[in-house]
Amino acid sequence: MDTFYWYPGACSFAVHAVLEETGHPYEARKIDIHGGDNDTPEYRAIHPRGLVPVLQTEAGLLTEAPAILLHLADSHPEANLVPKPGTIERTRCHEWLLYGATYPHPIFSRVMRAERFVADPGAKDSVRNKAQEEFWEALQLTDRKLDGRRFALGNAYSICDPYLTVFWFWGRFVGLPVGDLAAYSKLAARVLERPAVRKAVSDEQLPIAL
Amino acid sequence: MDTFYWYPGACSFAVHAVLEETGHPYEARKIDIHGGDNDTPEYRAIHPRGLVPVLQTEAGLLTEAPAILLHLADSHPEANLVPKPGTIERTRCHEWLLYGATYPHPIFSRVMRAERFVADPGAKDSVRNKAQEEFWEALQLTDRKLDGRRFALGNAYSICDPYLTVFWFWGRFVGLPVGDLAAYSKLAARVLERPAVRKAVSDEQLPIAL
Repeated sequence: MDTFYWYPGACSFAVHAVLEETGHPYEARKIDIHGGDNDTPEYRAIHPRGLVPVLQTEAGLLTEAPAILLHLADSHPEANLVPKPGTIERTRCHEWLLYGATYPHPIFSRVMRAERFVADPGAKDSVRNKAQEEFWEALQLTDRKLDGRRFALGNAYSICDPYLTVFWFWGRFVGLPVGDLAAYSKLAARVLERPAVRKAVSDEQLPIAL
Repeated sequence: MDTFYWYPGACSFAVHAVLEETGHPYEARKIDIHGGDNDTPEYRAIHPRGLVPVLQTEAGLLTEAPAILLHLADSHPEANLVPKPGTIERTRCHEWLLYGATYPHPIFSRVMRAERFVADPGAKDSVRNKAQEEFWEALQLTDRKLDGRRFALGNAYSICDPYLTVFWFWGRFVGLPVGDLAAYSKLAARVLERPAVRKAVSDEQLPIAL
């Protein structure tokens, strides 16, 4: 059975939701990334930078949330969570995963961990303020891109949707008015209707009204 | 014919090398991202955040370097630039692409454009200094991960290799001792031996001894 390393509400949440959606057998191991669980030699052997998610499989340790999402979706074609390889829809899926991983995600890291981005601790507020502003721009652009779509790829639910929902959660967590983003909020609501997603929310004890 | 938007030495270089490797027909259009070409309404209609690369195809505009690399490799299976979907090797390819996009790449953005990461201009040196230090750590980890491998995925060249070579170029560009990274430097040298890569280097007029 695979072992899934996660932290509540981190981008590992998307993997959690997809593990549930596919029925992939797994054992969950919570890593307190704020409490230092990820800074032990044992965990550094699992992920050299101490990040989650990691999926420990028979084929080895898998890292990077979008890579794990694609792995799970391709391993469970019956779940229909990703378009077929070689199609334009598949490329759109890759684009969304990369968009999330390279745009909202790193900005949010600067909101939450501004002190890690400066050599001089006095400069951290300047980084955090700028990042908070940019995170809101990122959520607004995501909302515009989602306009008129039921899910990120159109009518069908895919691995992109729980991934994008993570950033919507994060916006709410830092007090941004994410409810004003009509298309994005509808997407998040549709994602949160799914039993597999509700199971992941419940397992992670996330403060989300279901 | 597809249109390829690029800037010399940016991560678009990897796409450029793969366009040449596959023989995919394209017209190259250079966007001076430092001179403001990317800040026009025309280019913002192509990429809302003014980034390169973009590949304009019959199926629409494709963004995000790793997504474009996968698209090209999957469209040209005869070029053998990506493992078959659904295999563990394919997942390793996704991992490398995500690793590059989420680790060295965003750190380098902070080295080059530190002023964009702060609300107060006085804090920018603090961001740049920290980023320069972290960029070197990222290149060192990459080197350790490449140890004992001919290419990122093992013996076979793939889209991961020109992508990783971009970050090695960047390290050299900012004066880091990349030549000390034995495995990474050997990878870059093997990549730079390829005629398709040399063509991209020549077209971009990159200052690399071939």
